[in-house]
Amino acid sequence: MNKNKFTPIANLGEFNLIDNLVSDIKINSSLTKMGIGDDAAVIPYLKNEDYLISTDMLVEGVHFDSAYTPLKHLGYKSIVVNVSDICAMNGHATHALVSLAIPNKYSLEHISTLYEGVKLACANYSIDLIGGDTTSSSSGLVINVSIVGKVNGKKITYRKGAKPNELLCVSGDLGAAYLGLQILERERYIFNENQNVQPELENYKYILERQLKPEARVDVIDILKKNEIQPSAMIDISDGLSSDIRHICKASNIGVKIFENKIPISSFTSEAAIELNINPTICALHGGEDYELLFTAPLAAQSKLEAIKDTHIIGHMTSTPFKIELITTSEQSVDISSDGWDSFIEKN
Amino acid sequence: MNKNKFTPIANLGEFNLIDNLVSDIKINSSLTKMGIGDDAAVIPYLKNEDYLISTDMLVEGVHFDSAYTPLKHLGYKSIVVNVSDICAMNGHATHALVSLAIPNKYSLEHISTLYEGVKLACANYSIDLIGGDTTSSSSGLVINVSIVGKVNGKKITYRKGAKPNELLCVSGDLGAAYLGLQILERERYIFNENQNVQPELENYKYILERQLKPEARVDVIDILKKNEIQPSAMIDISDGLSSDIRHICKASNIGVKIFENKIPISSFTSEAAIELNINPTICALHGGEDYELLFTAPLAAQSKLEAIKDTHIIGHMTSTPFKIELITTSEQSVDISSDGWDSFIEKN
Repeated sequence: MNKNKFTPIANLGEFNLIDNLVSDIKINSSLTKMGIGDDAAVIPYLKNEDYLISTDMLVEGVHFDSAYTPLKHLGYKSIVVNVSDICAMNGHATHALVSLAIPNKYSLEHISTLYEGVKLACANYSIDLIGGDTTSSSSGLVINVSIVGKVNGKKITYRKGAKPNELLCVSGDLGAAYLGLQILERERYIFNENQNVQPELENYKYILERQLKPEARVDVIDILKKNEIQPSAMIDISDGLSSDIRHICKASNIGVKIFENKIPISSFTSEAAIELNINPTICALHGGEDYELLFTAPLAAQSKLEAIKDTHIIGHMTSTPFKIELITTSEQSVDISSDGWDSFIEKN
Repeated sequence: MNKNKFTPIANLGEFNLIDNLVSDIKINSSLTKMGIGDDAAVIPYLKNEDYLISTDMLVEGVHFDSAYTPLKHLGYKSIVVNVSDICAMNGHATHALVSLAIPNKYSLEHISTLYEGVKLACANYSIDLIGGDTTSSSSGLVINVSIVGKVNGKKITYRKGAKPNELLCVSGDLGAAYLGLQILERERYIFNENQNVQPELENYKYILERQLKPEARVDVIDILKKNEIQPSAMIDISDGLSSDIRHICKASNIGVKIFENKIPISSFTSEAAIELNINPTICALHGGEDYELLFTAPLAAQSKLEAIKDTHIIGHMTSTPFKIELITTSEQSVDISSDGWDSFIEKN
């Protein structure tokens, strides 16, 4: 075959690859309420309740580095990132299945430690671990988790539900997980250069925890419900604010204006960013793995939203399709329709 | 840590590893009818209908060799092996989610070809492809499929349902997939020695197809239902007859007597086995990946079962727990409680 006919996936990135693969997929069964294209698929359960189902793969050397990722944290995180997808649909996780491909450098004790994290996360999020697969791996450790959740069928938050002039909100704060990773990478580099130097990590507790042991924002789902706020669209921030807001804009066929001075950034994050000579806003916009919830809500919910401690209004939706605009602290308008983290592009 | 404290997983094998990891897992939710321990988990749907859910991981260099596995076949097989798990619970597959970890040696065209196989299998088995994950891989290609199916809640076939004196039956024929793999390995070896030698594969069409493009026995589920035969226990043969019957015996707390002269073996399989100097019965007993259904049924179903073309009565269950006995053609009794294929043990 002509070698020129081959298209490197690194030229496409993950989302274009997926678009290429799934563009011709049709839904045939009445048992499918939502297929590919959101944080989870939807299949029917009771009259007013649906099941959500989603899957996520973590690969050694891509999503985690075994040199500085404690196995218990890794197991915990593998569940959390999936629970976060269920939260993004306004649901609660109920069941998980865990597949592991295990290289022979890992012992029973290693994998038991990983599983301790899996079980702890399942306990914390009230999830039954109901299945999985375990196999050897000729290369790195791979963890695939599939998650099931349930949701009130009338309260599902799809990406496509946002409308112009609605509020854009985010929970928690952004950019910390990305900076935690930078610190871990820096310390590994220093350690590799001189193995007598002990890593200095005490000052970075918050950002390291955000990277190594994130939590899914079930509490945000619950508090929104308690306050009778129904988000019109929602997604979890796994690839970065600038990347994930694009999914909402694309699915809803609208645009957005984000205000830099409204983006929540922890003082620990700012401090580390400045130390590493990175603009904190850049971390908050393009850093991934925060697992916060990004959602839109009607203007009428503004005062209620402002009263909730851990949600922040950071902008509003506009009628210009796909225009993602950042209004900077110096009141300039900047187009930020660029990418977040992409495992294919970063590696090449 | 003391190095002696580490237990190599190769010393345990897959099933002991799983027993170690999941022995303390409890089911907490009323939404879990069956958790870990069968071919699929069971969660409720309608009054008389349940969902089944299962997951399976295929790893390059462990489950397939990219040197001789056509990518379209690989995609097809990744769905089929999961559909087979749903069949083993007496259900029909409805939905699939596909996660891929892709090394950069694979192009868009390669992955599209793999996906063609996935889509073809989904079309053939009436499955909606509803989700997945796509990431890069720093090492080999990994495919994880999670499958959902539905089943009449009163007709589920668990491994634990077999009783002494019931018939042991198997669909199709056994050992071909294993021999197909041996032929592929042999031809690869010859090709590596001398790249001018073209592989001679014409004579092995049947066994190669059984290895490269297996099918799940949905037809067997349907014909048993049509004949009003309710299996008391069922499993699919993925690791080999001798290994998979153990799961039924263990879960049902009984034993089994298998008659060598009743084990269905295709003439193509026997021919290839003799050519390779392997006993065909050994291939049928210990070779995996046949994806046939192994089930038990009451004695009363005997005449009906004998009338079904593609199911074979190969023995009966006994009251001695875990005793797996082969009655050879020379009427000797042999204990065959040994292992089938195990990805951890084979590699080490």
